[in-house]
Amino acid sequence: MSKLRVAVLGAKGRIGSEAARAVEAAEDLELVAALDQHDTLETLTASGAQVAVDLTHPDSVMGNLDFCVGHGIHAVVGTTGWNDERLARLTSWLEASPETGVLVAPNFSIGAVLTMKFSQSAARYFESVEVIELHHPNKADAPSGTAGRTAQLIAAARQEAQLPPQPDATVTGLEGARGADVDGVRVHSVRLRGLLAHQEVIFGGEGETLTVRHDSLHHSSFMPGILLGVRRVVSTPGLTYGLEHFLDLS
Amino acid sequence: MSKLRVAVLGAKGRIGSEAARAVEAAEDLELVAALDQHDTLETLTASGAQVAVDLTHPDSVMGNLDFCVGHGIHAVVGTTGWNDERLARLTSWLEASPETGVLVAPNFSIGAVLTMKFSQSAARYFESVEVIELHHPNKADAPSGTAGRTAQLIAAARQEAQLPPQPDATVTGLEGARGADVDGVRVHSVRLRGLLAHQEVIFGGEGETLTVRHDSLHHSSFMPGILLGVRRVVSTPGLTYGLEHFLDLS
Amino acid sequence: MSKLRVAVLGAKGRIGSEAARAVEAAEDLELVAALDQHDTLETLTASGAQVAVDLTHPDSVMGNLDFCVGHGIHAVVGTTGWNDERLARLTSWLEASPETGVLVAPNFSIGAVLTMKFSQSAARYFESVEVIELHHPNKADAPSGTAGRTAQLIAAARQEAQLPPQPDATVTGLEGARGADVDGVRVHSVRLRGLLAHQEVIFGGEGETLTVRHDSLHHSSFMPGILLGVRRVVSTPGLTYGLEHFLDLS
Amino acid sequence: MSKLRVAVLGAKGRIGSEAARAVEAAEDLELVAALDQHDTLETLTASGAQVAVDLTHPDSVMGNLDFCVGHGIHAVVGTTGWNDERLARLTSWLEASPETGVLVAPNFSIGAVLTMKFSQSAARYFESVEVIELHHPNKADAPSGTAGRTAQLIAAARQEAQLPPQPDATVTGLEGARGADVDGVRVHSVRLRGLLAHQEVIFGGEGETLTVRHDSLHHSSFMPGILLGVRRVVSTPGLTYGLEHFLDLS
Repeated sequence: MSKLRVAVLGAKGRIGSEAARAVEAAEDLELVAALDQHDTLETLTASGAQVAVDLTHPDSVMGNLDFCVGHGIHAVVGTTGWNDERLARLTSWLEASPETGVLVAPNFSIGAVLTMKFSQSAARYFESVEVIELHHPNKADAPSGTAGRTAQLIAAARQEAQLPPQPDATVTGLEGARGADVDGVRVHSVRLRGLLAHQEVIFGGEGETLTVRHDSLHHSSFMPGILLGVRRVVSTPGLTYGLEHFLDLS
Repeated sequence: MSKLRVAVLGAKGRIGSEAARAVEAAEDLELVAALDQHDTLETLTASGAQVAVDLTHPDSVMGNLDFCVGHGIHAVVGTTGWNDERLARLTSWLEASPETGVLVAPNFSIGAVLTMKFSQSAARYFESVEVIELHHPNKADAPSGTAGRTAQLIAAARQEAQLPPQPDATVTGLEGARGADVDGVRVHSVRLRGLLAHQEVIFGGEGETLTVRHDSLHHSSFMPGILLGVRRVVSTPGLTYGLEHFLDLS
Repeated sequence: MSKLRVAVLGAKGRIGSEAARAVEAAEDLELVAALDQHDTLETLTASGAQVAVDLTHPDSVMGNLDFCVGHGIHAVVGTTGWNDERLARLTSWLEASPETGVLVAPNFSIGAVLTMKFSQSAARYFESVEVIELHHPNKADAPSGTAGRTAQLIAAARQEAQLPPQPDATVTGLEGARGADVDGVRVHSVRLRGLLAHQEVIFGGEGETLTVRHDSLHHSSFMPGILLGVRRVVSTPGLTYGLEHFLDLS
Repeated sequence: MSKLRVAVLGAKGRIGSEAARAVEAAEDLELVAALDQHDTLETLTASGAQVAVDLTHPDSVMGNLDFCVGHGIHAVVGTTGWNDERLARLTSWLEASPETGVLVAPNFSIGAVLTMKFSQSAARYFESVEVIELHHPNKADAPSGTAGRTAQLIAAARQEAQLPPQPDATVTGLEGARGADVDGVRVHSVRLRGLLAHQEVIFGGEGETLTVRHDSLHHSSFMPGILLGVRRVVSTPGLTYGLEHFLDLS
């Protein structure tokens, strides 16, 4: 079986260089181009790349995708900075190239994606649920984007199941003790030296609790998700937003 | 809306008496009969029960179900002692009463069922996985039935995804340190005073781990699953084996 | 060896009745009296009690102790409502009866006491530390008294070791996400159906974390501490405040 | 205040190079020499080093220490390969240089040392205790040396307190499920991709559990212990074996 021909854009960055190594190490993939910001996009066509992995910058990604889609090169995109307008533009390019697929994902860690997915599934079955996220103390935002998004998904699932508000008899307390309120779901942010990125979702019902916890110990945790995206995007025309659509979760 | 009329068989037992109370407390259910071993099954028909919850004994359950199915009364069964022969017999009764539904479930804890379900879903995405179950020290078997079953489901999912055996460089060690081998998945059994029933499934991949943990702190944890079964079984003709089929896990 | 003769005051209360049973079950102890609020304190002397366990009410405890100390009966006190004035009064009674011992303890759970003790010991060795407490949703205060006290002890130990403030780069966030600030130590309060009383202290340093966690799953967890108090108080004249003084923690 | 003058031996190794950087970064320490295997020991005296950190090899460490002690240079030793004979030889050298101090430690992670210490302290107060250690799958031994040592310390503390054997009603089971038996304490070894080095000691008593957990996420976790050793060894003449002696654990 011939290998899938893959290019990495942003190959000198921290994540990009790891992605290039991961493609090289995969038996079914071939790294045919590793572009930095000074390289010309024609390298992609010249190298015969079938899939481009974009790990560049919000300033570059739209130009890169315009070129890729225009030339029928599938793309897996970890670059940030997406909004509705950008997604609409990308969609219109894909309509003009109906056999090309693009995966845009805010998080390539399979563990993080599964944590969100399982939390959504479990939400309707428990009276109580709270989210605890734990990160290194250099993080500027609290709660983390992933924790906020997880809480929103849980809140939406509770609402769809017509669950009442969560029980909470707190009448006296110190400010902040009960965490931040995200659509009725409490989120707690812990910051400790020694940690990287961790999240725990705890559901509580009569006599039992269910906990889903994700521990990210190294940035290499994005690689399996990127490789999964590369393998799947070639047979998934159009725009896919979010890695969860490539996980078969029955 | 009229309430669903529910009978409890085995209503003087530990779980049965809790179930009777739980039915009484539910706004959409009405407890119309609470039978002990000395009561006659005709009480079921006399009370107009639509659903019977059987929490009795392996010696009584088949007679009870023969009567229920014969009279078009749906049933939710937590009594143990099921095997292929018994299930076949129950199925044949149900064929003769095609509008009647029976749910037989080895575990009514929603948390335990979700733990198994999520473990199956996650299995194909991680290189490594082990199961740790923790129980009170009066438990006679190790590993627990639930842990053994969870490991088998994970092993089957790994095989279906054609994953290789798990990495393990252990060359020297004390006997038993690496746990029990269930179809290639290691299972560890902890026994400690103070615990009730707990299970942790830990998945490990490049740079990350995903943990699904269920803590059962009280036997009341079976009640939400029993009530869910009661509400669903009336519109699910035939035999359903396992509470997971009544959870909408998309 | 003759058994130690023990009386329980408040023996019809929830904790008191458990304590009476625990004394009866202990091989080295003999339950010689179990008093309710209607019983006369002379029963204590008549029964030859050497130690009284007081699990009554703030309104009764001072009268009970006045009688006990006056008659040379040692006491183990779990009743709440202590303040400086009450402790001073008790101390003056004990000065007049120099061979009698009284243990007053706000928490008889050995696990809770060890968690505080270990947290104090570890505090000086880590750059970061936060406290997470998790309780049932009927609890009125947040954070719990034990969590607040633990944070204060940690803060005092950090100050004594002249540690700088904890690192925290948070600049944007939702209100409450970073928890309550107790003397510079962040405390997070989780409320979930299914839980009883749980506390986790997480220390973080360069490349590592240390976690001390206490899970209280049943009120019977107070019994071993009460029995330990009974056995030790007979050879510890004067007032002892806090069970930790009876734990040999070298 | 003048800075303490520190040399690092083995400064090109993985841990050694981190130690050199950590010394340079500490405000109260000055890195005066960083020796590799080709450098001569006279560099130590020429640089005026007061403390040498030895992170070399079992083949080199005795020669290095002979030189250091002979020249009144204190030493902090993380190199492995110690046995009774080597320790006796080192002790005799120190007797001839009574003002010099040497710290030899099998583990410089403060978290690991505290976990062992707290486990020893708690052991006598709980009916049950088990150890779970979790490591990356490339580890050759199971259980880990630290887990085995922790279990031995716990077993010794239980014996000293004359505790009976742990309760365990297991009668049927799969081989290995209950872990390895280390002096009556069960030890479970988990191996998962994504982990580094983690250990959990769980104590169980009536109605409660106490957990002490150490997570090592990066090898940099040894640095604070090494720096602590450097600062303390200059005022601790003679041989100190184990970092725990430099932690003030009251």
